[in-house]
Amino acid sequence: MNEERSSKVLALSGGVGGAKLASGLHAALPPGRLGVLVNTGDDFAHLGLSICPDLDTVMYTLAGVVNPETGWGRAGESWAFMEALAAIGGETWFRLGDKDMAVHVERTRRLRAGASLSAVTADLCRRFGIAAAVLPMSDDPVSTVVDSDEGSLAFQDYFVRRRCEPRVRGFRFQGVEAARPNPDALAWLADPDLAAIVIGPSNPFVSIAPILAVPGLRDALMRRRVPLVAVSPIVGGQAIKGPAAKMMDELGIRPSAAWVAEQYGDLLDGLVIDELDRGLADSIRGPRVLVAQTVMRDAADRTRLAGEVLAFARGLERRPGR
Amino acid sequence: MNEERSSKVLALSGGVGGAKLASGLHAALPPGRLGVLVNTGDDFAHLGLSICPDLDTVMYTLAGVVNPETGWGRAGESWAFMEALAAIGGETWFRLGDKDMAVHVERTRRLRAGASLSAVTADLCRRFGIAAAVLPMSDDPVSTVVDSDEGSLAFQDYFVRRRCEPRVRGFRFQGVEAARPNPDALAWLADPDLAAIVIGPSNPFVSIAPILAVPGLRDALMRRRVPLVAVSPIVGGQAIKGPAAKMMDELGIRPSAAWVAEQYGDLLDGLVIDELDRGLADSIRGPRVLVAQTVMRDAADRTRLAGEVLAFARGLERRPGR
Repeated sequence: MNEERSSKVLALSGGVGGAKLASGLHAALPPGRLGVLVNTGDDFAHLGLSICPDLDTVMYTLAGVVNPETGWGRAGESWAFMEALAAIGGETWFRLGDKDMAVHVERTRRLRAGASLSAVTADLCRRFGIAAAVLPMSDDPVSTVVDSDEGSLAFQDYFVRRRCEPRVRGFRFQGVEAARPNPDALAWLADPDLAAIVIGPSNPFVSIAPILAVPGLRDALMRRRVPLVAVSPIVGGQAIKGPAAKMMDELGIRPSAAWVAEQYGDLLDGLVIDELDRGLADSIRGPRVLVAQTVMRDAADRTRLAGEVLAFARGLERRPGR
Repeated sequence: MNEERSSKVLALSGGVGGAKLASGLHAALPPGRLGVLVNTGDDFAHLGLSICPDLDTVMYTLAGVVNPETGWGRAGESWAFMEALAAIGGETWFRLGDKDMAVHVERTRRLRAGASLSAVTADLCRRFGIAAAVLPMSDDPVSTVVDSDEGSLAFQDYFVRRRCEPRVRGFRFQGVEAARPNPDALAWLADPDLAAIVIGPSNPFVSIAPILAVPGLRDALMRRRVPLVAVSPIVGGQAIKGPAAKMMDELGIRPSAAWVAEQYGDLLDGLVIDELDRGLADSIRGPRVLVAQTVMRDAADRTRLAGEVLAFARGLERRPGR
């Protein structure tokens, strides 16, 4: 086996954007060489079920069963459960498809029986035929809270029920101080076969920050011996998907790929920005910059971008001096 | 309002057979004049959900949304959840349809939030537009256990997973000693407007016996001032549906409508037997006997039988001497 084929890559991901890049990496790497370290700050209990939106989006995307139009949920989904729930007065603001329910019900059952989230996730991924390790950031509960002009909101309340309408003032990750990092994630970070770390084009505030806030994970990332590159989720001053740019506006930050470089700071060896932002390349201080087509419209886009990101990372040295 | 129209009827029911008669009574009586006292010994926790098969069968039947082919579950049901659950290795021996899941999830959520089973049931029935009171026999858990030649089996294990194959030796109703009767059921039994009590053509061993085993319910039935009639679930030595006749065989009882009279004994003022069993009428000691077409193939059959049962009960006196 040549060296390149035997090297491993760890991707950090929230939901849709990170999951798309992860699926490109999944396609670009040999089986078993991709780990995806996933935000669980969005997880919540709803209708008595343990729901892990980012884990599910990553899992469904890697399995090729994701709804290609939304980027989350399942392809060919049906809604008989939700319609019947509405008819008896149940809560329907968070839409749960019939197929999707199988994962929530089975995961909840296993968690209640004492299994860890990482063990349940690994087994679900095996059942879905996924040849990557999908790693929840922690087996302990962490809950992202959005401080807004309408008070503190649980993340899904803000994101789904309120459709990101309240103006954000900040974010907190409840329980994160006590959360232990997923030991498998630490093992991936310490693995001598690890060749690169990639932060996907996920929301820096609510997808990547919770992962970095887990005690031990940021330190392990800082101690890495391999290059770390991020793909900017901000393209032309806009977020490709989701509320990242709106959040920046409300926090008094001008949305730009340059801000992404500042936000990740010392963590970054390289930053991938979109062709649209080519003009910013020279102004970005710190990381090396790759300009690429970062908007992933189909599987070919994802695999191509993944290839470019991997080649870029391979050409980088771990930045010295820290 | 004339006296007949103002009189109330309380029906005792298990699943399919009792539910069919209850729906006939529902159609035959003015709104609000029917109470259905339902067995909850079949209830069980499955996949983390509180499942109440007999309550649901009664509710779906009264609401007119039951699957007309099976007599349980919902009409026009879909199975996307169950298929997706099978694909990830979940337990599928107890089939839960997509629409049906709405009731299980919502009931489980409300019970966990502290609501009583009777309150949740009443609200679900209101949502389904049911003009009858569906009364769980108790808000406390009771679990029917089938003692068999293969050991003790939880009821659904015996009934669904093992398809009634093990030979029965007896039945126990775990928790029944401590179960308090549903206060609404006691109120129905004490209601001066109550005109009749009807035991539906349900399994005497596992549908009606658990109700009668709840402390206080049998006594209240014995103290009644109104006629009590039962419709035999045994027709021509066979059970219309379910394992009643097989259970009798295995317990050394010759299945017959005459045995039903013996089983209910002093409780009965009247027994309705099928035309097929007309020859047994004279041999039945104790209750008055009505011979009728008891097999309910459609809504017209149910309403007709309900009308005959009500007329029969009205013509009976409460049997004296007890």
